[in-house]
Amino acid sequence: RERTRAFLAHPVFQRFVIGVILVNAGTLGLETFPAVVERYGTVLTVIDHIALYIFAAELIAKLYVDRAAFWRDPWNLFDTVIVAVAFASTTGGLSVLRALRILRVLRLLSVVPSLRRVVSALLRAMPGMSSIVVLLSLVLYVAAVMATKLYGQSAPNRFGSLPTSLFTLYQTMTGDDWGNIAREVMDRHPTAWIFFTIFILVCTFVVLNLFLAVVVSAMDE
Amino acid sequence: RERTRAFLAHPVFQRFVIGVILVNAGTLGLETFPAVVERYGTVLTVIDHIALYIFAAELIAKLYVDRAAFWRDPWNLFDTVIVAVAFASTTGGLSVLRALRILRVLRLLSVVPSLRRVVSALLRAMPGMSSIVVLLSLVLYVAAVMATKLYGQSAPNRFGSLPTSLFTLYQTMTGDDWGNIAREVMDRHPTAWIFFTIFILVCTFVVLNLFLAVVVSAMDE
Amino acid sequence: RERTRAFLAHPVFQRFVIGVILVNAGTLGLETFPAVVERYGTVLTVIDHIALYIFAAELIAKLYVDRAAFWRDPWNLFDTVIVAVAFASTTGGLSVLRALRILRVLRLLSVVPSLRRVVSALLRAMPGMSSIVVLLSLVLYVAAVMATKLYGQSAPNRFGSLPTSLFTLYQTMTGDDWGNIAREVMDRHPTAWIFFTIFILVCTFVVLNLFLAVVVSAMDE
Amino acid sequence: RERTRAFLAHPVFQRFVIGVILVNAGTLGLETFPAVVERYGTVLTVIDHIALYIFAAELIAKLYVDRAAFWRDPWNLFDTVIVAVAFASTTGGLSVLRALRILRVLRLLSVVPSLRRVVSALLRAMPGMSSIVVLLSLVLYVAAVMATKLYGQSAPNRFGSLPTSLFTLYQTMTGDDWGNIAREVMDRHPTAWIFFTIFILVCTFVVLNLFLAVVVSAMDE
Ligand code: NA
Ligand code: NA
Repeated sequence: RERTRAFLAHPVFQRFVIGVILVNAGTLGLETFPAVVERYGTVLTVIDHIALYIFAAELIAKLYVDRAAFWRDPWNLFDTVIVAVAFASTTGGLSVLRALRILRVLRLLSVVPSLRRVVSALLRAMPGMSSIVVLLSLVLYVAAVMATKLYGQSAPNRFGSLPTSLFTLYQTMTGDDWGNIAREVMDRHPTAWIFFTIFILVCTFVVLNLFLAVVVSAMDE
Repeated sequence: RERTRAFLAHPVFQRFVIGVILVNAGTLGLETFPAVVERYGTVLTVIDHIALYIFAAELIAKLYVDRAAFWRDPWNLFDTVIVAVAFASTTGGLSVLRALRILRVLRLLSVVPSLRRVVSALLRAMPGMSSIVVLLSLVLYVAAVMATKLYGQSAPNRFGSLPTSLFTLYQTMTGDDWGNIAREVMDRHPTAWIFFTIFILVCTFVVLNLFLAVVVSAMDE
Repeated sequence: RERTRAFLAHPVFQRFVIGVILVNAGTLGLETFPAVVERYGTVLTVIDHIALYIFAAELIAKLYVDRAAFWRDPWNLFDTVIVAVAFASTTGGLSVLRALRILRVLRLLSVVPSLRRVVSALLRAMPGMSSIVVLLSLVLYVAAVMATKLYGQSAPNRFGSLPTSLFTLYQTMTGDDWGNIAREVMDRHPTAWIFFTIFILVCTFVVLNLFLAVVVSAMDE
Repeated sequence: RERTRAFLAHPVFQRFVIGVILVNAGTLGLETFPAVVERYGTVLTVIDHIALYIFAAELIAKLYVDRAAFWRDPWNLFDTVIVAVAFASTTGGLSVLRALRILRVLRLLSVVPSLRRVVSALLRAMPGMSSIVVLLSLVLYVAAVMATKLYGQSAPNRFGSLPTSLFTLYQTMTGDDWGNIAREVMDRHPTAWIFFTIFILVCTFVVLNLFLAVVVSAMDE
């Protein structure tokens, strides 16, 4: 077991795995070009399978080395999920599943140390944001229910149902094309500018403070 | 009175109220689906009424416990307004009023401690911004009067009246579709780019400093 | 002179001037409504003239009090320019000049202490930004000359001349509708994505650092 | 050699070079106006050539003064590349090469001390961002492969091939017009909102943290 552990932790092996992921990322990208698939389809599939078996072998070796401790490292869980999705997507005939194969490339996040550190930092910043994200979701939900009730009938493609309204207001929140959406609604409801103006002000204000909370908490560290 | 106070402050009761709000948020959301309303309309209305009476009972109990002190806590005022709006909206036949019923869900802000803290923090950040918000409003007003006078006749759907101009310039301030608006005006007024460029520069500059003021004041704390 | 000084500095007089500006802001806003002008046109003009004479009288009184020192305070220069523009715009028949009358309302910036402080803070932040603004202008100019040469003939309404390109790229810099502009150009020049991608990356990067420079310099104070 | 060194470092000479660059920037800008080229074409070309020879002479003088040390200053490399591109673009008949002549104006970055400092600061900020830029690129690549597979056939002008998808998603990342792109796709794939919502959330979150990392590292200095 100690030898396997040393082998897995060896920089050369690490670089080999990174190489396999990058090559696999390349073949999965090439698969989107029909001309390439027609000519080199089988080669790409073979490389794809080899890469997948290397990932699986690596995982099994790690599991053999770390045993129970394996499951305590969230990165191992991440890798396991990725490889499981990868196996599910090779067997499945569903195009959605096949499209998920590219998620395998996200293994780079767990293998490359600097990316691993960045992602860890991002995840640590999350709890500090959670309350504000809940607040934003609440604002979004309340606004979506109101907009569906008020504008659903006159602007069905924007606010015809609750999911549609949620999408439209999420778009409005990011500031994309909201002026045209508001004008569309204002043709029938001249007072709709009140709704949109308040919604944007509240969102801007909350996002500004989200940002602030994160800066200040980053300072404290 | 002491027993009522203990009851109201009990974590189980608090969680019960949060539960009622969430269920009510769900029923109000479901009410936007015509198919659901047709089948379960009465159930939803009953749940809605029960939730409202629970909120009212809670408020009255708090008022009984705290007496005059009740009105000194702004969160109680907030809750009272929300419940008052809720009662007004059940009786009224106006669709706008009925749409306001969802505002009831905002009671989560006063009930969930972490949201309460976030909102308090947001409100504390407000005075530091007030001067810059006044400045931005002044810039917006001055620009809207100018744009109405200059471009009102040639681009009536954008700058035809003062309210229309205020809306268009508010949209411009958020950077949404301003290029197309400016081009529309420039067809007739080739020098309009001066107006738009200066307006956007001034707004960007003021917003940048708004942001800065808030970051710096947050640091000081 | 001392009595005039005391009079000018008296809080009641200051509030009176602020009141005159606000009333004048209101009348100038009302003048954009044709229906109001038709009915109360003369009243609005009279108020407008009275306000202007009050501003002029205040300025002359200040000049009498401070003499040479008057010209050393940049706020006095600001007020003088505003009032001079105001006089020019009452006499002139040009609609552009008449539209500039609303600039008078900007006198609020020099009269209201909190706005005065905010504007002073904004102006103090300017030198720290100047180098980066020069850098951004340089990037804009270089990109505009290149785009005019490369895409001027195939997309004349976007890049037909240097001023047009400057406008289009300024719009691109603010992120407004750049995807559609790029696609328009890419119909004829498939490699145009290189130009747009690099331009946006450079601008984003420079603006990010502009922001940073300002935050850091604000910290140092 | 010492005299040449003193001459090159003399403020008057430095200001002369800046003047030459600015004049050259002007002539290159004027060349975009066909009317000007028709009348003063030869004058502009002559000025352009003189400027280029001055730049070349300056570089050769510097090389003579500094010898091997010349190549150790990255700014000298920058200047050499700029002048080399400039010579290549005068000879070449290719319009792309001719458009690159304006890059010569970027020599201002190495000549004007304040710009030089700003650019150095920007470049120093780069390593702190590299991991997050890699992360963003990874997210972009994975999302582009998925989108090409899933939506390529039903929205070929948006996601028809990997490069097209990369462009569309880069645009989405900047928040430009993404609502309309998503709606286009959702006509055929009603669940596409999941893809777009997650993609925008992830990008916003990563960019927010990019920003943060830079602020915090700037603080540490
Ligand atoms: Na936008
Ligand atoms: Na847009």
